[in-house]
Amino acid sequence: MVRVALGLEYDGGAFCGWQTQPGACAVQDHLERALVQVHGAPVATVVAGRTDAGVHATAQVVHFDAVNPRPESAWVRGVNTFLPAGVSVLWARPVGEGFHARFGARERAYRYVLLNHPVRPAILAGKVGWLHGGLDVGAMAMAAGHLLGRHDFSAFRAAECQAKSPVRELRRADVARHGDFVTFDFRGNAFLHHQVRNMVGALVWIGLGRRPPDWAAELLASRDRRLGAATFAADGLYLVDVRYDAEWNLPTPGGRVPLIDSL
Amino acid sequence: MVRVALGLEYDGGAFCGWQTQPGACAVQDHLERALVQVHGAPVATVVAGRTDAGVHATAQVVHFDAVNPRPESAWVRGVNTFLPAGVSVLWARPVGEGFHARFGARERAYRYVLLNHPVRPAILAGKVGWLHGGLDVGAMAMAAGHLLGRHDFSAFRAAECQAKSPVRELRRADVARHGDFVTFDFRGNAFLHHQVRNMVGALVWIGLGRRPPDWAAELLASRDRRLGAATFAADGLYLVDVRYDAEWNLPTPGGRVPLIDSL
Repeated sequence: MVRVALGLEYDGGAFCGWQTQPGACAVQDHLERALVQVHGAPVATVVAGRTDAGVHATAQVVHFDAVNPRPESAWVRGVNTFLPAGVSVLWARPVGEGFHARFGARERAYRYVLLNHPVRPAILAGKVGWLHGGLDVGAMAMAAGHLLGRHDFSAFRAAECQAKSPVRELRRADVARHGDFVTFDFRGNAFLHHQVRNMVGALVWIGLGRRPPDWAAELLASRDRRLGAATFAADGLYLVDVRYDAEWNLPTPGGRVPLIDSL
Repeated sequence: MVRVALGLEYDGGAFCGWQTQPGACAVQDHLERALVQVHGAPVATVVAGRTDAGVHATAQVVHFDAVNPRPESAWVRGVNTFLPAGVSVLWARPVGEGFHARFGARERAYRYVLLNHPVRPAILAGKVGWLHGGLDVGAMAMAAGHLLGRHDFSAFRAAECQAKSPVRELRRADVARHGDFVTFDFRGNAFLHHQVRNMVGALVWIGLGRRPPDWAAELLASRDRRLGAATFAADGLYLVDVRYDAEWNLPTPGGRVPLIDSL
């Protein structure tokens, strides 16, 4: 038996989320079917971050245990021949049994890309969020700073969140304008269900002038999700990095997606 | 009667090309149906560049004659509410009867975006071309220089091309690497059918080392399409600019698509 780690890229709009579903429309369903073709026996995958429907990943990580050994090229090129167009295996590495894609992840990073323009996106429909009204990015960046650090993020947590603790450490929270686009970059030890989309929703309210920048701190302190803004659309959200202890020697995400990397 | 010019963005993968088809799956079919909803009477559009199926546009230009006047906001926001997700009207301008989207276009620019990586694209499937093998971009850039100027481009012309003359003036032909991506930028007075995809195909052969850079000049001089490389995939091709005489005062393309503009 050998434990294998895989790096994955996928278009969240092409699937019904990460996690296996009765309709078998999830990324996990497609990946496990393709892995069985190459492996010749059932495979159960464990993922670093269970993304919702519509949420993209440029650097998702999974692991599984293979009873039949295969070369790394089989886990990449071989598996890709059995996957639909919206998902690709980027790399594969044999790892020790101590590796766990979910519990071993020390840090995760998400990027949200928002088109801030009067006209909706066409070429990037489903790949970016969209907002018509003018945004005060300076106010949003200031507000984002109030969220940094180790906090109880209950005010940004979905009702259906299954995490035992609402405490997370947010290590990066940057908002920046690039022409007609506004990007939100978050990095932390882990994130609650809908935490990023709820933070983006609150920052957008501040950017629109509906609330002052200090409201981000008040909302965080309230620990009350009912006081927050609506959960923002999944369309522009990307899981862009998952980090493990250096001993595992996994590849770091490269410049695969210009939409993400060259903004 | 007022003549109106429109700027359009569309995802070529969502339609069967620009030109109206019996199945009504073309961008023109969708646009004219939406224009009728706003205009209340039939509308016939004339386009700057008739793109093939799979070819994208960030700055397509069309004109039509409206018997019922409407405000510019109706031609943009109103029409967009009747268009599918893969196409958006970016701007509208009333123009004089002397304006013609096709015959008045003085210059057109196309960009081809190629992912040069062992693993196929997932998030950008259909939005970029893809090639596994290593490319000598220096050789490709040198070869592209041989194509600059006013020439008979018969060696890069599709058999079904309907242009009266095969002579075109190529004013820009740049090839550059940006991480895992290679971009091809062409600008000229006009282009023959499949000319850009055939030029990309030939440059890729040179980049792979199958032909030396001088072969681009030989192929051009031969005026024989049968000697050239295969027509490259439509996936990564974008119409990114169409220029008219300054008197028409049309908007110039902005930073709508990071995939295109920030590479």
